[in-house]
Amino acid sequence: MADTPHFSRVAFIGVGLIGSSLARAVRKAGLADRIVCWSRRAETSARALELGVVDEAAETVADAVAGADLVVIAIHLRGYEDVAKAMAPALAEGAIVTDVGSSKQVALKALAPHLPDHVHLVPGHPVAGTEFSGPDSGFAELFEGRWCILTPAEETDAGALAQVTGLWEAVGSSVQIMEPEHHDVVLALTSHLPHIIAYTIVGTAAEMEGDLKSEVIQFSAGGFRDFTRIAATNPEFWRDVFLVNKDAVLDVLGRFEEDLSAVRKAIRRGDADGLLAMLTRTRDIRRGVIDARQDSDWHRETG
Amino acid sequence: MADTPHFSRVAFIGVGLIGSSLARAVRKAGLADRIVCWSRRAETSARALELGVVDEAAETVADAVAGADLVVIAIHLRGYEDVAKAMAPALAEGAIVTDVGSSKQVALKALAPHLPDHVHLVPGHPVAGTEFSGPDSGFAELFEGRWCILTPAEETDAGALAQVTGLWEAVGSSVQIMEPEHHDVVLALTSHLPHIIAYTIVGTAAEMEGDLKSEVIQFSAGGFRDFTRIAATNPEFWRDVFLVNKDAVLDVLGRFEEDLSAVRKAIRRGDADGLLAMLTRTRDIRRGVIDARQDSDWHRETG
Repeated sequence: MADTPHFSRVAFIGVGLIGSSLARAVRKAGLADRIVCWSRRAETSARALELGVVDEAAETVADAVAGADLVVIAIHLRGYEDVAKAMAPALAEGAIVTDVGSSKQVALKALAPHLPDHVHLVPGHPVAGTEFSGPDSGFAELFEGRWCILTPAEETDAGALAQVTGLWEAVGSSVQIMEPEHHDVVLALTSHLPHIIAYTIVGTAAEMEGDLKSEVIQFSAGGFRDFTRIAATNPEFWRDVFLVNKDAVLDVLGRFEEDLSAVRKAIRRGDADGLLAMLTRTRDIRRGVIDARQDSDWHRETG
Repeated sequence: MADTPHFSRVAFIGVGLIGSSLARAVRKAGLADRIVCWSRRAETSARALELGVVDEAAETVADAVAGADLVVIAIHLRGYEDVAKAMAPALAEGAIVTDVGSSKQVALKALAPHLPDHVHLVPGHPVAGTEFSGPDSGFAELFEGRWCILTPAEETDAGALAQVTGLWEAVGSSVQIMEPEHHDVVLALTSHLPHIIAYTIVGTAAEMEGDLKSEVIQFSAGGFRDFTRIAATNPEFWRDVFLVNKDAVLDVLGRFEEDLSAVRKAIRRGDADGLLAMLTRTRDIRRGVIDARQDSDWHRETG
């Protein structure tokens, strides 16, 4: 466990579900003297201020980060480069910049080249979320009992890494350090692939002829229902995740399609033994998930 | 709603999860004077007797069905033909024969040619189950609030159909009548395909290199976990279902693979609009599932 840090000014760039939840958690744990935010849409930051999630809604990115010792980027990955450029001249000496994006390679590429050498970049990804978005949907407990993955570079300042680690631990998460490339493969497999599959199978049903479509709904309790649940989260969010983490996603999707093709062949050929062998190899994983206490309750996470 | 029937002697051929649950429910609802059973394994029927689920454990199929006005076949589909042949000479005039198998075309083909003309065949499939098996795992409430699909032939005696309908309604199910072919497609899509997919994706993870495999378990909350849950049921059961309902399963699997290939192409090409369109078409289905109240609680069903 890292020491619990204290910041004089924390700037949130983006105050949607994740940003506003972390702001609430930071406030609740007393980790900051002052919390400011900036949002691309002025009404979002105004709402965060109105909700009391932040102390100040800045008009520009530069205003938000000026004097901050911690900057949390909590917007869509496609906006990273612009905000990195906008904040660069205003960042304080020794400030820590972190983020919550779902592709760590893309985050690194979009941020690192634009930030001044005198700040510490510690990319992060809390594996937590709900199907809702916006500052009203956030809550301080979102990160309790969840993992946060940090992907610092080898040369990252140990003190800065300890502070970001301490931040996530203070809001209830466990921290895991990973290489950015490795993070992207792990998430592609555990989160992005399941979502692609779920969206696709529900889409397959959606294109069925009229009668069949209503019966799929009527008899969805046979397994299909669980896929509709996974495919219920924000399509725009997932589109961006799939496109941004494209290489890792296509890699695991390719592996899955090969395996599916082998299962299809075994069914077509009536290869009972081969099919049973494929169905049986899943047991260790399921046991592992239960042993790791990752299946206590139904909880929807984002990518 | 059909009238609640009463039977003097109900014979269960097979007393695993489904058979013993229905026997318990029949007893609880007072639908039979006497309940007998036969099982391929003598210890299974002895256990059902010991549990008080049945009044008598017969030594042969013929002994079990002799004098029965209702025969319920609740064994794996691959055993159907043998029990049909074994029971045929012993079946009483006008007896009703029903089953609980997950492919109605296969059930029909395996049973119809061997049964005498003087009995009424009303194939059925309760869309209910748990991940457990055997007479100890059954319970009378298994069918409450669930669907039971019946696939009678056009010439089926209306009185026999009404009695089987009344039986399922009396144990808490809603009955839907379907063509056998149609049943098999609906179940392939709502139940068999989701299980193939879930088993395959967990299998894909199981073949990952050592480190990655443990991380998949660690971060399974991102969506993967739900697939491990679906893939947790009996592999032997699912192998048989997939092989027995082969034609319908391969048909929906083919459709799914085409759709998945289109999603993969959109990701590879960076086609944001096309990808969003694919992810968005799932919304109506999810809304339908919720409106149809098929997503009140977590409940695992079989195929």
